[in-house]
Amino acid sequence: MELARPYLLFIGDARDDLAAKTASGILDWRRDWCQGQFRLPGCNADLGIPDLSIADAQAKGVKTMIVGVANAGGVLPESWAATIVAAIEAGMDVASGLHTRLDSIPAIADAAKRHGRQLIDVRHSDMTFATGKGTKRPGRRILAVGTDCSVGKKYTALALEREMLARGLKADFRATGQTGIFISGRGVAVDAVVADFISGAAEWIAPANDPDHWDLIEGQGSLFHASFAGVSLGLLHGSQPDGIVLCHEPTRTSMRGLPDSKLPGLKECIDLNLACGRLTNPAIQAVGVSINTVKLGPAEALAYLAKVEDELGLPASDPVAFGVANIVDHILKVVR
Amino acid sequence: MELARPYLLFIGDARDDLAAKTASGILDWRRDWCQGQFRLPGCNADLGIPDLSIADAQAKGVKTMIVGVANAGGVLPESWAATIVAAIEAGMDVASGLHTRLDSIPAIADAAKRHGRQLIDVRHSDMTFATGKGTKRPGRRILAVGTDCSVGKKYTALALEREMLARGLKADFRATGQTGIFISGRGVAVDAVVADFISGAAEWIAPANDPDHWDLIEGQGSLFHASFAGVSLGLLHGSQPDGIVLCHEPTRTSMRGLPDSKLPGLKECIDLNLACGRLTNPAIQAVGVSINTVKLGPAEALAYLAKVEDELGLPASDPVAFGVANIVDHILKVVR
Repeated sequence: MELARPYLLFIGDARDDLAAKTASGILDWRRDWCQGQFRLPGCNADLGIPDLSIADAQAKGVKTMIVGVANAGGVLPESWAATIVAAIEAGMDVASGLHTRLDSIPAIADAAKRHGRQLIDVRHSDMTFATGKGTKRPGRRILAVGTDCSVGKKYTALALEREMLARGLKADFRATGQTGIFISGRGVAVDAVVADFISGAAEWIAPANDPDHWDLIEGQGSLFHASFAGVSLGLLHGSQPDGIVLCHEPTRTSMRGLPDSKLPGLKECIDLNLACGRLTNPAIQAVGVSINTVKLGPAEALAYLAKVEDELGLPASDPVAFGVANIVDHILKVVR
Repeated sequence: MELARPYLLFIGDARDDLAAKTASGILDWRRDWCQGQFRLPGCNADLGIPDLSIADAQAKGVKTMIVGVANAGGVLPESWAATIVAAIEAGMDVASGLHTRLDSIPAIADAAKRHGRQLIDVRHSDMTFATGKGTKRPGRRILAVGTDCSVGKKYTALALEREMLARGLKADFRATGQTGIFISGRGVAVDAVVADFISGAAEWIAPANDPDHWDLIEGQGSLFHASFAGVSLGLLHGSQPDGIVLCHEPTRTSMRGLPDSKLPGLKECIDLNLACGRLTNPAIQAVGVSINTVKLGPAEALAYLAKVEDELGLPASDPVAFGVANIVDHILKVVR
């Protein structure tokens, strides 16, 4: 799926900034694509960009309204429908990451049909893929893998893209989850495809490219997460990465959603990813470690990174706090 | 999904016995459930069981008609619809393993609605599952894993069930693919579930049970198959097996569907399955090797089995040619 730009970020009546984190994630990484925000009465979040009416947004050439707000259950409240219909009538596509499909609301489905606009539910995938083939394809690929879910794989891949683009390299972030899709304007939520096609979807996401082009691929889950490891393995095989960056959150005491499950060691996690990844790319290597240090003090964070570098012999960083220049330096040295 | 018994095996106008192999697989393992076959004019296959009219089958108490015939593309020819409708009108459910959904044929959908009968497309899954939890549950489980697809995992699990039942043990074959579902009367085609729910589906398939009950679980794909390894890993994690039986076809020179991909070594394949399987069952062990020797001569087959036993220190057999008594002996000795 491909999203037309620029975007209007709809955050409805979000009760706080956290509820609007999909929208703020888009803004963090794609400020240029966002013309403004649309807020309903009672909204307690503010993205800090201009409030636009639907008419304003239309005048500014907005092509897609992004429903960038989450609520418990991922449902679409009826009170949002009128705004969504107005956006469609003003010529916009609408994209959503909610569980509720946009076209399950008759008024929205009717409006889209009447005006020939697209409704894009990034959490669902109606695409059909070929099964993965495992054939080596040209182009270079880096995959962010994790000790757990939600440890910073998306931000790591985005930071690598930003650093590479800043150095004048050819680079594309490749999204595999819903927020990533809004940020890249394309991609597939790989956890939503039929199981037989996980690696095939990954091959589609990061297709053959110029030999000096870099794909920075958002990982999903963890080979050590009992709920989602199948997704992680299919994505690893389909990505056939030249390099993996291991992502980790050092204060976490159990796997996300599995209170009785401990996190793997960093070395153990790297080793299993390399052992499995060799199936589709025998030259796979670990090229860096990305630590989410948000819960550590600054001195503690630096000490932790130094310890990881020492133990694993790989560059380590927190992409948000310190950037990933050291990891990109290393990638350019060792991936040929 | 659960299928009501007994069955009528519909093999349509199958052009040869191979086209009816789903039906013959059911018959091989569940003779008692099959009241007869239904053949259309021009059918070149014969299952060797009574030909029944729909009225005969109704009189014999048939509850489900199984569409047990495959053709290129998995489509349902129009010429079959009248018989399927007649079965529904005679009070039968209908189950199919074709790609074409039964309810996509209006006459069939209407008849099922009118008579309140179930249409079961085992190749599709509309079930919703919880995500896998990885929590250890009571009961003992053996999973058939493979070096490749189509190496005998289903037959191995079925042979283990048969041998255990013959010894008076509590045992259930657990189906994870379409033919297996017809044979067991229940199960889920795990390759058809949404990727996020692979291990959750496996937990549903082989639920908590008596401490002395054995689940014999049909494996899928291979951790070394670049197209399907994600399915294999989710199934391994969700099955949390106490023992794995490695299945292999010794004359195969490349992975099924991937001509450039070599098969892994037996030891290598066991080791990766154990390394990954420890996540949800730290006591996992390899308990046997199942070799499909159909393409070897008898002397060659025995020599190959002896070599495997010697190299791996595990009992080896061909379940079809020689049974699995030696593997069950070993399982009962080492799994506690």
